[in-house]
Amino acid sequence: VSELTYRTAGVDVAAAAEFVKAISSEVASTHGPEVVAHSSRFAGLFRPDLTGLTDPILAATCDGVGTKVLLAREASDYTGLGIDLVAMSVNDLLPLGARPVLFLDYLAAARLDRPAMEAAVRGIAAACRMASCALIGGETAEMPGAHPEGHLELVGFALGLVDGERLPDPSAMSPGDVVLGLPSTGLHANGYTLARRALFDVGGLSPDTVLPELGQPLQDVLLTPTAIYVDQAMDLLGRTPVRAAAHVTGGGLHDRAKGMLQPGCGITIDPARYARPAIIDVIATVGDVPWPEMTGTFNMGLGFLAIVASDQADGAKTAGWLEVGEITAQDGEVDLGYG
Amino acid sequence: VSELTYRTAGVDVAAAAEFVKAISSEVASTHGPEVVAHSSRFAGLFRPDLTGLTDPILAATCDGVGTKVLLAREASDYTGLGIDLVAMSVNDLLPLGARPVLFLDYLAAARLDRPAMEAAVRGIAAACRMASCALIGGETAEMPGAHPEGHLELVGFALGLVDGERLPDPSAMSPGDVVLGLPSTGLHANGYTLARRALFDVGGLSPDTVLPELGQPLQDVLLTPTAIYVDQAMDLLGRTPVRAAAHVTGGGLHDRAKGMLQPGCGITIDPARYARPAIIDVIATVGDVPWPEMTGTFNMGLGFLAIVASDQADGAKTAGWLEVGEITAQDGEVDLGYG
Repeated sequence: VSELTYRTAGVDVAAAAEFVKAISSEVASTHGPEVVAHSSRFAGLFRPDLTGLTDPILAATCDGVGTKVLLAREASDYTGLGIDLVAMSVNDLLPLGARPVLFLDYLAAARLDRPAMEAAVRGIAAACRMASCALIGGETAEMPGAHPEGHLELVGFALGLVDGERLPDPSAMSPGDVVLGLPSTGLHANGYTLARRALFDVGGLSPDTVLPELGQPLQDVLLTPTAIYVDQAMDLLGRTPVRAAAHVTGGGLHDRAKGMLQPGCGITIDPARYARPAIIDVIATVGDVPWPEMTGTFNMGLGFLAIVASDQADGAKTAGWLEVGEITAQDGEVDLGYG
Repeated sequence: VSELTYRTAGVDVAAAAEFVKAISSEVASTHGPEVVAHSSRFAGLFRPDLTGLTDPILAATCDGVGTKVLLAREASDYTGLGIDLVAMSVNDLLPLGARPVLFLDYLAAARLDRPAMEAAVRGIAAACRMASCALIGGETAEMPGAHPEGHLELVGFALGLVDGERLPDPSAMSPGDVVLGLPSTGLHANGYTLARRALFDVGGLSPDTVLPELGQPLQDVLLTPTAIYVDQAMDLLGRTPVRAAAHVTGGGLHDRAKGMLQPGCGITIDPARYARPAIIDVIATVGDVPWPEMTGTFNMGLGFLAIVASDQADGAKTAGWLEVGEITAQDGEVDLGYG
């Protein structure tokens, strides 16, 4: 009987250490002066710049990329998915007005897949640079028997900082307030189970199908990375008091719009005031998906929403913000203009 | 053709919302005055108590539970695994002297499995209470097609706070320093791929086998939750300057002991000065696993190590700390007493 080792049992600790070495320059590219160098590898250390914060509050989020990972796997392209991973978590900090400061990633697979994992980390590091946050730690887990061969699980954690005196104030919301929105780059990383079912199972299309209204393979359209809204959101929140804001993810434009509302308030968003990505119409048509299901699943073209007082709207329309709707007096009513 | 909805496509957003409601009292049981109440559900907010910290530094970690999840699945028992999840991340903060303050969890499965997920969250909440940290957020992901039916992926993220003036100082390490250790409760959450291979594949045992030297089913021994070392580590680090410390996880007692060493230092740990759990001997014998592989994979009975000056050792031996070895002048040498 040959002796049993951890490596023959399916876990290669030495290869994992090589992987960590290979990604070290990518990781370091995200580090600013707030990252604290130290020799222990148990945790990342970060000295937050609290200058000017009267009441420093931490904001924390975590998220994955859902079944968008299945498309990335078919395309053997994980760099964009790394961007999605960071975007999903850091964008969730922004509705609270929190500036992202640090990020950690968790990657797990049945076997260490260096090309896939290194591609994912390149995307994660690029996105951290875009979001001005430091990638200060992470975990790479090799779990034979727990994951199907070829599956890569990606999970992200983001931490932000906000001054308690500058948190959004939903109680000030009132009819007549203006709804601002930021364009999405496509589906972002939400609703892919429905999208894949509609396009591939019901519609009989395949990832390499090129539809005239899209002009490129479905796979490329679907793998477009999620927009990172850090600069635009911090620009707005830095100059304008915001009633409420939302990153448009699970539950789609409908649920996220409704989720911002205060008692006595409704919301109307005009589809003529923003561009709906063509992939949305393809999914609805090819998959025979009713519009209420579409608006309750997808962002419809708006990846981020913010509500401001009407006299603040003009000043706020910088950095690509669109005025897309208003707060009404119809308690709890959401009118997205989809009949 | 019946209309396609997100629910028929395999993702039940309403059931996910019900799950979040069901766990809310567990989550709230971990909240102290530092948790900031607010109506947005995008991020958790936490106002850290910075009193007495001259140089506040954040420490961040993330981790999963490895293939221990496969045993929990066979036993349909995820509460202990929730404790493991918190322990793996919060214990990683302690070698830096950081006090855990908040935790987030990520749970993913092909289908929402409420009994399994609620059991996991009960364990997570119980462990957060033990670790005095607040569970302020998390993500529950339903990912049909990405995970095998029945698999539950658990990932945890922990944040801690440390005063920069109280970080361990490895440069002060010198021969004659004392190695302190804390007993483990068993394998914790590391080395399960090797353990399962040794016990079940090579050894032909099954999870319900009761070996006389263990006195209970293998499954119960293997599912014992990881010890949470927060109180013991903070007690030591609060009263004694520490050279270095280690949470004994991947790489086992050997690699974690070696990882603490400074140039010109070696380490010796005496197996007679701590108790080796019986499961360790069973794995080595039944699986014919050589001792160097055992010490490079498992904690051998010591879940946490700390190095202090010899004149500090007596005062440090509170709260269950054992004096298990010393720092030698043999540069880079690790002697664990296993031939």
